[in-house]
Amino acid sequence: MDGHFLGVDWGTTNRRVYSIDADGAVVETERDDRGVLAIAPGGFDAEAADIRARFGDAPMLCAGMVGSKRGWHEIPYVLAPADFAAIARGTRWIAAGRTAIVPGVCRLDDRRADVMRGEEVQFLGALEAGLVPDGAMLCQPGTHSKWARVAGGRLVDFTTTMTGELFALLKQHSLLADLLDGDVGPNDGFVAGVRQSQEQDLLSQLFSIRAARLLGSLPLEQSASFTSGLLIGSDVRARLTDPSEPVHVLADANLGGLYRCAIEELGGSAILVDSHSAFVAGITRIWKEL
Amino acid sequence: MDGHFLGVDWGTTNRRVYSIDADGAVVETERDDRGVLAIAPGGFDAEAADIRARFGDAPMLCAGMVGSKRGWHEIPYVLAPADFAAIARGTRWIAAGRTAIVPGVCRLDDRRADVMRGEEVQFLGALEAGLVPDGAMLCQPGTHSKWARVAGGRLVDFTTTMTGELFALLKQHSLLADLLDGDVGPNDGFVAGVRQSQEQDLLSQLFSIRAARLLGSLPLEQSASFTSGLLIGSDVRARLTDPSEPVHVLADANLGGLYRCAIEELGGSAILVDSHSAFVAGITRIWKEL
Repeated sequence: MDGHFLGVDWGTTNRRVYSIDADGAVVETERDDRGVLAIAPGGFDAEAADIRARFGDAPMLCAGMVGSKRGWHEIPYVLAPADFAAIARGTRWIAAGRTAIVPGVCRLDDRRADVMRGEEVQFLGALEAGLVPDGAMLCQPGTHSKWARVAGGRLVDFTTTMTGELFALLKQHSLLADLLDGDVGPNDGFVAGVRQSQEQDLLSQLFSIRAARLLGSLPLEQSASFTSGLLIGSDVRARLTDPSEPVHVLADANLGGLYRCAIEELGGSAILVDSHSAFVAGITRIWKEL
Repeated sequence: MDGHFLGVDWGTTNRRVYSIDADGAVVETERDDRGVLAIAPGGFDAEAADIRARFGDAPMLCAGMVGSKRGWHEIPYVLAPADFAAIARGTRWIAAGRTAIVPGVCRLDDRRADVMRGEEVQFLGALEAGLVPDGAMLCQPGTHSKWARVAGGRLVDFTTTMTGELFALLKQHSLLADLLDGDVGPNDGFVAGVRQSQEQDLLSQLFSIRAARLLGSLPLEQSASFTSGLLIGSDVRARLTDPSEPVHVLADANLGGLYRCAIEELGGSAILVDSHSAFVAGITRIWKEL
């Protein structure tokens, strides 16, 4: 397809609409909180009409959790390694020529199952736009952090980690809850947590946070950052097999800064990549392949 | 001290009272749910009076979370390595000759902080009673699993892991909650989880449970056991540095059976130890040292 279209990055909690002209330039973009969980089943057609009322009556290409069982229409995953052609082949028109949804990507072997929905557009888009080199390792931190390798135009393999969700569970419901109210930043407490994460396994380190508070060896104002450092340090440690290779991080400044701090503390280097540009490059390329 | 006394294993959720005669034999014992969290601050004197009304008006020696800040009186930890003499010296009479509370044990160095309250009585008691050999590695699984080494009459060192609490958090509040309703047992799903835990780090393995369900590679009826196997497998993997050395497990048949299964799957051997006998031997020895 070619011409003006609306590219929608439609996630679990948030949504961002890009109005993209025939040259792939963003005419207009807006983020809102109309993620999949905010929309009642059956409410997606009305949501799409609302998007067109705001951004113009153009064809629409959506990616993300909107293609999951809980979303608008469930679109089967394509198997990694996957390139733009495979993703375009797996894209489904839910209204011919009007509205389509991009598939997610899965990987499955004896060792591990994994899935993603939406990040594939950004990862391959970053490569397409020249934001990362061929063969790059990418990381998109979040509730479920994604680590991926792109090479030869393909998303080769990836790993999802529960790092962000685990921090939220600990903060809201665990024995550690009353220690985790403070702000998290790439400060001394965070760096101490990253270092500590290299010493032992996560199950024992998590309890040691409580013990360190009881014994007075961890200041309360550092507890939240220390815990975040433990988790992100554990995450980075398991993925950073070759510290001489830079990690390309797609994230906002806050979360990206934490991952960058942990990666550098562990002897690696991090390059922050603009995830919006990556998404636009990716969704535009898929649009052209349809 | 000598003569008849009441030994109370007073934990966070449960409590067990042992009426112990001058020869160290248990005359009567009863478990109830009057753990520390069930008792309002200021309510402990009335609880003690109630125990004496049921078991006889004898002196009382308590151990466990009853000695924490949230308990009856906060008793400072003694530092590991600790023997019965050190624990007896750290025991505090809160009513002279009538009621005393055993201290917990802590460990603290640059690598890690850790604490326990109550398990020290069982660990040293198991050694005292000859239930485990000198130099034994012990494990008491639970919400917070304890791994300890006893040698030369001392609790040498120990590690607490958040294994049980993490399973509960995942089951109650996480993305995986709807997969974890089933029963957990040492079945094929559990063994598969233990094996999988050796492949990669916990943060990625936890997300893979969801992915495996979505991709149909993990039967729903195995999901809870598989997840328990992942967590317990990760716990055992980090502690079982020498599989030729048996692990002495103090637990009920269910939880003990899961840990035994994981230990054996990882090439080790497990010996189940009666934790009640261990507690009685330990608390009686402390009583004699007072």
